[in-house]
Amino acid sequence: MARRTADIPTLVSRARDGDQRSVARLITLVEDDSGQLREVMSALSTYVAPDRTAGKGAQIIGLTGPPGVGKSTSTSALVGALRSRGKRVGVLAIDPSSPFTGGALLGDRVRMQDHALDKGVYIRSMASRGHLGGLSVATPQALRVLDAAGCDVILVETVGVGQSEVEVASMADTTLVLLAPGMGDGIQAAKAGILEIGDIYVVNKSDRDGALQLRRELRSMMSLSQRAESAWRAPIINTVATEKDGVEELLDAIGAHWEHLHSSEELQRRRLQRARVEIEAIALASYRRSWRGLAGVGLDDLASQVVAGALDPYAAADALITG
Amino acid sequence: MARRTADIPTLVSRARDGDQRSVARLITLVEDDSGQLREVMSALSTYVAPDRTAGKGAQIIGLTGPPGVGKSTSTSALVGALRSRGKRVGVLAIDPSSPFTGGALLGDRVRMQDHALDKGVYIRSMASRGHLGGLSVATPQALRVLDAAGCDVILVETVGVGQSEVEVASMADTTLVLLAPGMGDGIQAAKAGILEIGDIYVVNKSDRDGALQLRRELRSMMSLSQRAESAWRAPIINTVATEKDGVEELLDAIGAHWEHLHSSEELQRRRLQRARVEIEAIALASYRRSWRGLAGVGLDDLASQVVAGALDPYAAADALITG
Repeated sequence: MARRTADIPTLVSRARDGDQRSVARLITLVEDDSGQLREVMSALSTYVAPDRTAGKGAQIIGLTGPPGVGKSTSTSALVGALRSRGKRVGVLAIDPSSPFTGGALLGDRVRMQDHALDKGVYIRSMASRGHLGGLSVATPQALRVLDAAGCDVILVETVGVGQSEVEVASMADTTLVLLAPGMGDGIQAAKAGILEIGDIYVVNKSDRDGALQLRRELRSMMSLSQRAESAWRAPIINTVATEKDGVEELLDAIGAHWEHLHSSEELQRRRLQRARVEIEAIALASYRRSWRGLAGVGLDDLASQVVAGALDPYAAADALITG
Repeated sequence: MARRTADIPTLVSRARDGDQRSVARLITLVEDDSGQLREVMSALSTYVAPDRTAGKGAQIIGLTGPPGVGKSTSTSALVGALRSRGKRVGVLAIDPSSPFTGGALLGDRVRMQDHALDKGVYIRSMASRGHLGGLSVATPQALRVLDAAGCDVILVETVGVGQSEVEVASMADTTLVLLAPGMGDGIQAAKAGILEIGDIYVVNKSDRDGALQLRRELRSMMSLSQRAESAWRAPIINTVATEKDGVEELLDAIGAHWEHLHSSEELQRRRLQRARVEIEAIALASYRRSWRGLAGVGLDDLASQVVAGALDPYAAADALITG
């Protein structure tokens, strides 16, 4: 297993030609925070896909929403519809890093296996913990690899509702918020803050009781939260992902949002924001790494003093910073 | 409104005597990251409640679980039961910072108004965003204020399931994970990672169909994830919080976990971990603040170069760190 050092230029070149194994290998290199991560990043950063307008790249679509609304099924349906339109598609499924990750809980990933042999689809699961900088460091790197591989669209599917969803939303060009009838009332969904992050709302399982009411509630809450400065009015699309109902309409809405992003300043604004978050996360991870190693004024010593009441946490942070 | 500088020693002294307005004022000072935050922290860090064994302080209990399981109702029921046992109780409700926060979405906070006039209860809502360091900075400070006010127990209730819940769990001495029948199947709950963070599991709405099955699923998944090194076996408690059913049993389990924490190394281990997270978060917030102000090698300039493909994000982070 003399697999120590990868030949990055060759891998990047093969990934650009759409070789799935090279794409997978590159994502592993960036995900594991390997010694070659910087080399990969440097090789990818200046890349512009030859058949695309410079600087535009893949449309990154985030899918979020409470557990059980059908995110995996919707992702799979979108992949199918995008492939029918001849698009090259990447899928990043952000799973919590759990003792289960390798096993039982991959159950619903199985649905994606419809697409496993399709050369125009790249599917990758990523753990949300584990990487030192978390999602905010690992995800953008993986997106960059998929972008370089010539994906037209990258679907990023997240688990749960919370901080990590807000983080992922800040990485997406277009954020889909999925809801379904009977998942708890509208007020609860809004509490999770998801009414602020959606570019498109999807009422999945629309063949169930309560779909109409959910749509009505959504509409009325959105009219309250509508950002005045935005020219984009988030549509609500009804789907039944298991039957592929509404998926074409959803794709049209996704396309319309992409048009909007290009015709306004919004695409550039979002990508700048994404880059800011990414750079900060990398810098913070770098500090964090160095703090773990410090003796005397190291994090562990300072924490002991805070617990003992000998130091307040702000004074401890000062000591950490000044080293 | 010449309310510029608060008299911290007087506020802290009054808060120690249980004055609710002083407690509220101190939390506002730490939550707003005011100029006096450090002064407050310094005054509080060495405090040990006179009627308690040194260094132990309040038992911090985190309540987490998907939207709609009845977290607010359970919190309210726990407050009532703790008051009956003569305990002084603090409640921190972590709400997402949303345009709604001031209005409609406080609806379920109304349930807490049963306790609003009780001098032995401190109730506080906190926004999960807004504060520069986020939850991980603001929450521990507020906990310290409530601890100094002589609370025996502090309940921290969070919204949603995700990264922020994991963060809050890392702050709690005892984490309650609430589930309810009909909220989506067990596999979905596990995906959100909550099966790894609970010290006690609560099946609320146990009078509904599916409670028995949920309990069975939980039990079988927990047997898979059981941490081998732990002497604590997380119990599953059935409740109907609206009827206060099972709440006494839940309190007993909470007490048993507190005993376990004291009789093992676990309390010290958790508090050290909490201090580490807190110190890091404060230090990172401090860096972040300084980065916003830099010209030339500031975050905005570097982000522009990354978006344009002139710089890779790792090189940008290096530039940020070296200033």
